[in-house]
Amino acid sequence: MSYEERRNKLYRWMAEERLSLVMFEYTETRPDPAVRWLTGHPGDGLLFLGFDRQGKSHSLLVPWDINIALIYAQADSLVAYAEFERQPLKALKRALGYFNTPLGSKVEIPPVTPYPLFLNYVEALIDFEVLCRNGGIHQEVETFRAVKDEEEIGIYRTLSDITNELIDALEQHIRSGDLSTEGAVALFIEAECRKRGCEGMGFETLAAGPQRSFGIHPFPAYTGGDFATRGLSILDFGLKYAGYTSDVTLTFVRGPLSRAQERLLTLTERAYRLALAMVGEGIATKTIAAAVDTLFGNAKKSMPHALGHGIGLEAHEAPALRNRADNDWVLKPGMIFTLEPGLYDPAQGGCRLENDILLTEAEVEVLTHARIIRL
Amino acid sequence: MSYEERRNKLYRWMAEERLSLVMFEYTETRPDPAVRWLTGHPGDGLLFLGFDRQGKSHSLLVPWDINIALIYAQADSLVAYAEFERQPLKALKRALGYFNTPLGSKVEIPPVTPYPLFLNYVEALIDFEVLCRNGGIHQEVETFRAVKDEEEIGIYRTLSDITNELIDALEQHIRSGDLSTEGAVALFIEAECRKRGCEGMGFETLAAGPQRSFGIHPFPAYTGGDFATRGLSILDFGLKYAGYTSDVTLTFVRGPLSRAQERLLTLTERAYRLALAMVGEGIATKTIAAAVDTLFGNAKKSMPHALGHGIGLEAHEAPALRNRADNDWVLKPGMIFTLEPGLYDPAQGGCRLENDILLTEAEVEVLTHARIIRL
Repeated sequence: MSYEERRNKLYRWMAEERLSLVMFEYTETRPDPAVRWLTGHPGDGLLFLGFDRQGKSHSLLVPWDINIALIYAQADSLVAYAEFERQPLKALKRALGYFNTPLGSKVEIPPVTPYPLFLNYVEALIDFEVLCRNGGIHQEVETFRAVKDEEEIGIYRTLSDITNELIDALEQHIRSGDLSTEGAVALFIEAECRKRGCEGMGFETLAAGPQRSFGIHPFPAYTGGDFATRGLSILDFGLKYAGYTSDVTLTFVRGPLSRAQERLLTLTERAYRLALAMVGEGIATKTIAAAVDTLFGNAKKSMPHALGHGIGLEAHEAPALRNRADNDWVLKPGMIFTLEPGLYDPAQGGCRLENDILLTEAEVEVLTHARIIRL
Repeated sequence: MSYEERRNKLYRWMAEERLSLVMFEYTETRPDPAVRWLTGHPGDGLLFLGFDRQGKSHSLLVPWDINIALIYAQADSLVAYAEFERQPLKALKRALGYFNTPLGSKVEIPPVTPYPLFLNYVEALIDFEVLCRNGGIHQEVETFRAVKDEEEIGIYRTLSDITNELIDALEQHIRSGDLSTEGAVALFIEAECRKRGCEGMGFETLAAGPQRSFGIHPFPAYTGGDFATRGLSILDFGLKYAGYTSDVTLTFVRGPLSRAQERLLTLTERAYRLALAMVGEGIATKTIAAAVDTLFGNAKKSMPHALGHGIGLEAHEAPALRNRADNDWVLKPGMIFTLEPGLYDPAQGGCRLENDILLTEAEVEVLTHARIIRL
């Protein structure tokens, strides 16, 4: 689907909801990837979608770096953010003039707008109905984004191939002893992914040798310390390709292990297989996450994080896969998400197994080949 | 200053303002480094500071990863965030019970709280006065953090030494031809900083060869392309040490240059010297930024970003150094900030020169030695 087709989908929704103008914001503190999803612009900026007096739809991109936007972005108009001193309220006011939006119209701003800033908007736009809500256009985009289209699935196939190449290369170099520290492993991934066309990492690589693998997210993310020595080592990484992120976790195991360590591994693998077996169209993700929690609970263990999450332009996006009352996500064809059961013990270390799953009309595809690797 | 002394400073402020309980939040979408500044905890979590019925102050940390908190954090009490299903409102309710906060008390939540979430807080805490505002405790912390204490200045001296070692090493390896691509340069920094005890990068390194240096922030941040070939190449990086970030930009220049390129360099260096000469106690940062804008304006150029910014636990923090009506920051001893004039031209490339400056009672110290390097 082209950027324009995505925007057209939103214009239809806006017309139904009688929204005259909506604002999306990708900035340092409020980075909404909807801006890139709707225009291709990979940097900071604001995006306005609206209707003019004749009811004609129009997109206005306000990028921080106009030179980058000129190369990458597709929008009907471009105005540099510097024109508005990088103040969203100033840009929004100009947009209202640009679209000639009738007084009294509905104008929607991001639902992450801080309360004090929201008051400023309301005061400055007294002649308009300012909406700032969950369940509005921004959540609509999130819901659209949770189901990937053909182009996005194509990107994920390429990205998964690259991720899998790196997984195999990592296993080989760790077995041979070429990569023996957390830092060497992390920098290998950094270097190799770019050689294969990636934009970079989806998030900071987490590499934790046996002394540190008990942390869900080790701190620091990686060090010069030993990796894959005796015990359990965790490697969690994601590659970014054409804006999209993969997210996998491998556990490297070197024996002899304690019985407690063997048990962590067995339970994690069992939880992963259970979760994967439950994936299917129409299944509530809460059900899957609850089943895993029950499995761990029966073994007197507990997992201190969610079972998984959607991936896409963000490393964590919809759908959520967690066992929580407010989670009402249901799996649909086109969703791409992680399954990542893990257990952590300060005395024994930790293990986690995470792969990226694509649900299609026909089947459940495990896109990535992360695994527990016994050395 | 110890974490406890920092908290005590806040308790005094809270008592004056009759605040019974305040909440700080460091999460994926709202990462407030106040949590680390006040406890040392380097990961996700919530921090509550409050008074009990006897008026005794107390700190309650709610970390996502309790094992990491047990190692790094100092707080009076710890409760795992998982106990509250990682929902800040649930944790806040429990904190109110824990502190036995009297009904009708003032409770302050982060000013970045989204408006729809703010409504949930107000509804759930109907018996309390919920504050969500600019100018409250969170801004007070930001203002405290803008002036570094002795420990923090000590950290910056070590961090600047490491940064300067890397700058010299980079110059040497780029001159010798050992580092000739954007990726090689960026990965060299990644690897070398950790060898010297850094936690990692303060932000993703930006390395742009002559073809891409016109971007304020090149996209992607670095590639396999040539670096420091004929023309202007920009390298912007920051190291993270004990939580604190340095931030420097070098421009590598290889001739012969066009007259237009020479002019970009001359103007940038002139702007940098002007800005540095104006730094001093009691000076409004807006004045300095305005002088640089005037210098560029007289040469028919314009800088598409701010002149600089404070650095600390965040790569961008207070004070702001920008030419904007709402900037009322004034320089004080203890502030550490960048000066980073730059000019960008799609045809000629870009240049930027950025160093970290410490203002003390006695003098203006240029902590880092970034420079325009002619090859």
